[in-house]
Amino acid sequence: MPKRVPVERWTADGARAEDDWLAEEAPLEILIEHSFKDQRRVSTWGITLRTPGQDAELVTGLLYSEGRIAGARDVIGLDMGEGRVRVSLDATVDLDLGRTRAATAACGFCGAADLPEVDVLGDAGFRISREALCGLPGLLEARQGQFRETGGVHAAALFDGSGELVAVREDVGRHNAVDKLIGWALREGIGVDKTGLLLSGRAGFELVHKAGRAGIPFVAAIGAPTTLSVELARRANVTLAGFLRGERVNLYTGTWRVL
Amino acid sequence: MPKRVPVERWTADGARAEDDWLAEEAPLEILIEHSFKDQRRVSTWGITLRTPGQDAELVTGLLYSEGRIAGARDVIGLDMGEGRVRVSLDATVDLDLGRTRAATAACGFCGAADLPEVDVLGDAGFRISREALCGLPGLLEARQGQFRETGGVHAAALFDGSGELVAVREDVGRHNAVDKLIGWALREGIGVDKTGLLLSGRAGFELVHKAGRAGIPFVAAIGAPTTLSVELARRANVTLAGFLRGERVNLYTGTWRVL
Repeated sequence: MPKRVPVERWTADGARAEDDWLAEEAPLEILIEHSFKDQRRVSTWGITLRTPGQDAELVTGLLYSEGRIAGARDVIGLDMGEGRVRVSLDATVDLDLGRTRAATAACGFCGAADLPEVDVLGDAGFRISREALCGLPGLLEARQGQFRETGGVHAAALFDGSGELVAVREDVGRHNAVDKLIGWALREGIGVDKTGLLLSGRAGFELVHKAGRAGIPFVAAIGAPTTLSVELARRANVTLAGFLRGERVNLYTGTWRVL
Repeated sequence: MPKRVPVERWTADGARAEDDWLAEEAPLEILIEHSFKDQRRVSTWGITLRTPGQDAELVTGLLYSEGRIAGARDVIGLDMGEGRVRVSLDATVDLDLGRTRAATAACGFCGAADLPEVDVLGDAGFRISREALCGLPGLLEARQGQFRETGGVHAAALFDGSGELVAVREDVGRHNAVDKLIGWALREGIGVDKTGLLLSGRAGFELVHKAGRAGIPFVAAIGAPTTLSVELARRANVTLAGFLRGERVNLYTGTWRVL
């Protein structure tokens, strides 16, 4: 929820002390209880900065996007505390979290020896018309409640082939918004192979990777893609649309999914 | 440098095949040759996704922001390869990179046991007028060459008390743009205690933290701050300005630095 903080608004006419609504950003420490070589252990997986709310979805989606779990069934317990969550994984999930990857401030694949690949998606039949595609930003805007109040959060949504929004999530971190969506679908058992992922901002490598890993065949960004996200989308057979504005859209890969 | 990729531009009038210029995003693997308990070793520190260019600045700034080095002098060698950089650190820097922090896709402080603190900044005398502050976005826009071509990169700049831009960096990652700036100042031996950091986007916790750690007393964002970045700026005695648009600016902390 947005929080009220004091602010001085300065204009050419002078300064005025008021209150402002800001997007909430708070740390969440993730502890994982898991098996490794038939022993149970608890490892600190990390701290993430996120907008509080839907933390169970966030953690489930994050573990899935990072390839740590195969689905929501692998999560057998989620113990939510203040600024901390303890996730218990099924005994069949063998994880060596002691040998984790190093972190840098710049990227989600920090410490990975190679960039992760995704499987090549088949054709589950998802199609959408240009008209429906171009209607998505307006639908998203109407549901970006926190953005309207704070101007400080990204949004991500799942949409279907008729151009309806299936679910919307907002977060100060654009990765988090996507992880919350994917975690929601996993926990609800909702198939995503006939949905698309709508992004309020740009479509970098990591966001296209999350979509591909989850089996989402279509990524539509209101902002720009990058060279690497186009390359990944092509390899993974994901349709990548960018600069979704007004009646216009740029299609970089998989144009056959647009009617 | 922006790269040209094929695109289909769809409008209400049909589709047109053209070329588009996209922001380049590419992985950089960072290897660190360092001392640990009087032994030299080479550790893989991580992979970062960045816009190629100024990689030496990026790596220097990143190592500094993460608290691994105390200054550019600690970097005694930088061996740049294709998609890889090997950084040699002075023997006086003792690092246990084997016990690094776990990474998540969401955040740069992944795996840290606690959020990092910064020292409380003293007053080195940096002041700026509202007029000069409000002129910054226009100056930045004029120098965002890659953004103009691609729409896909963030920018960060250092500015002085008269409202001139001292240096500008662009990158697909907003953290990278700031690390490149800080790395540049460190390598050039340029003091930053009388400069401000200008951000083309929002000012989240991590960006304010990078400024505070580097001793930059002023952060001005064209976008929104977050609850946590305001809290950190207040504790660190950093002035935080947001929503820098036209003749208006919101001051959240340290208003005494604005005239």
